[in-house]
Amino acid sequence: MNLNNIRIVLVETTHPGNIGGTARAMKNMGLLNLFLVNPKSYPDPKALWRAASANDVLEGAKVVDSLDDAIADCHFVVGTSARQRRIPWPLLDSRSSAAAISQLPENQRIAILFGREDRGLTNEQLVLCNVHLQIPTSPNYSSLNIAMAVQIICYDLLIESTKSREIAHADKDWDSPFSTQADMKRFYIHLEEALSEIGFLDPTAPRQLMPRLKRLFNRVRLDEMELNILRGILSEAQKLARKTLEN
Amino acid sequence: MNLNNIRIVLVETTHPGNIGGTARAMKNMGLLNLFLVNPKSYPDPKALWRAASANDVLEGAKVVDSLDDAIADCHFVVGTSARQRRIPWPLLDSRSSAAAISQLPENQRIAILFGREDRGLTNEQLVLCNVHLQIPTSPNYSSLNIAMAVQIICYDLLIESTKSREIAHADKDWDSPFSTQADMKRFYIHLEEALSEIGFLDPTAPRQLMPRLKRLFNRVRLDEMELNILRGILSEAQKLARKTLEN
Repeated sequence: MNLNNIRIVLVETTHPGNIGGTARAMKNMGLLNLFLVNPKSYPDPKALWRAASANDVLEGAKVVDSLDDAIADCHFVVGTSARQRRIPWPLLDSRSSAAAISQLPENQRIAILFGREDRGLTNEQLVLCNVHLQIPTSPNYSSLNIAMAVQIICYDLLIESTKSREIAHADKDWDSPFSTQADMKRFYIHLEEALSEIGFLDPTAPRQLMPRLKRLFNRVRLDEMELNILRGILSEAQKLARKTLEN
Repeated sequence: MNLNNIRIVLVETTHPGNIGGTARAMKNMGLLNLFLVNPKSYPDPKALWRAASANDVLEGAKVVDSLDDAIADCHFVVGTSARQRRIPWPLLDSRSSAAAISQLPENQRIAILFGREDRGLTNEQLVLCNVHLQIPTSPNYSSLNIAMAVQIICYDLLIESTKSREIAHADKDWDSPFSTQADMKRFYIHLEEALSEIGFLDPTAPRQLMPRLKRLFNRVRLDEMELNILRGILSEAQKLARKTLEN
């Protein structure tokens, strides 16, 4: 999927802040092509303020007079809709829409349409679409702010577009190697010795102490530096125990 | 997963519009518990305007003086972070965080923290967290508006909560309740005291010792019995240190 071939089309948006918020939401997710069909107030300083560092997306927006002009060269058109319409349409949620788009040939152009804040896309506009997209929401309050809806859809598109790429996981950038089973075994021997020496563990009545501590430290997967810190603490406690014995 | 047990915590938010936007984003996804730690301007008509029909969430928000007050009774704390910090922490993306939360017992309380708009959570705040959450973004513009970040995370939580989860998880049959943030705070104070007393921690040159130990124990999520064992060990070591001092 090539995010450069996906455009966001805002139809007759009323609040300029929403246009700016949309530009930022897009750029955060790597989408750069914004079309504005008859915006009520544009350009507008409120849009610029909300766009923050996505002012380039905002200023590069194509302002057109009709929805037709915005989507004429597109191969696949997605209409966002908060409610089920009179005529049922192929309806996908946001993740499934992203998956469907990822199945299209890379060079196809895709438009995602958002209607006016107070009424959404009209039936005439929805009929232009290949599929309708509905974002899952709470049944108690399903009306999303338009820029929020753009954010969620662009987020799902970004995730879908990077699916093959493995998302960075802290494990890979950890600052110390993780300890081996052999390290852990030595640590547990040290731990048991130290707890006996300081008088916390009674070898004649050990109860469930060592199994519990092993469960704890095996759950966490210690790195080598952490293991060294813990062994340092044990050694220090052992020194104290030995000094006390001498006196 | 019970969305009612998840709270959104905004720390020192500067713009009231973002607080309102957050309330709406939450309610759209079925989350209702909002905590505000030292908001710069609240209540504020801008917040109310952006909240739209989520005015109930906004007006029900708990305003507190410190982050501690917001999370003391929580079992699992997630810190949102846009960038990698000096000490790597267990890091999950938004979907994986939702999946991780869905594995927790239903009655556990979960907090998701969002820092100030211009700087995010501080290192001291991030150290309180069990995991860090990073929302995947375009590398060219990774700074999400805070309400947008809330929107994405709540969306992923809603989606996750509607998946049926039949798989039994060890957490649910655990043999001891898990510790709260307040328990952990007391434990860390005890730990720091004890390590000073036994001479392992030099308060004038603490290096990275406490953050590293906090990372370790936050990673594992201690249960109450484990916490008692660890505090028992610390107390025993402290007794030895005091005896040594007397001689």
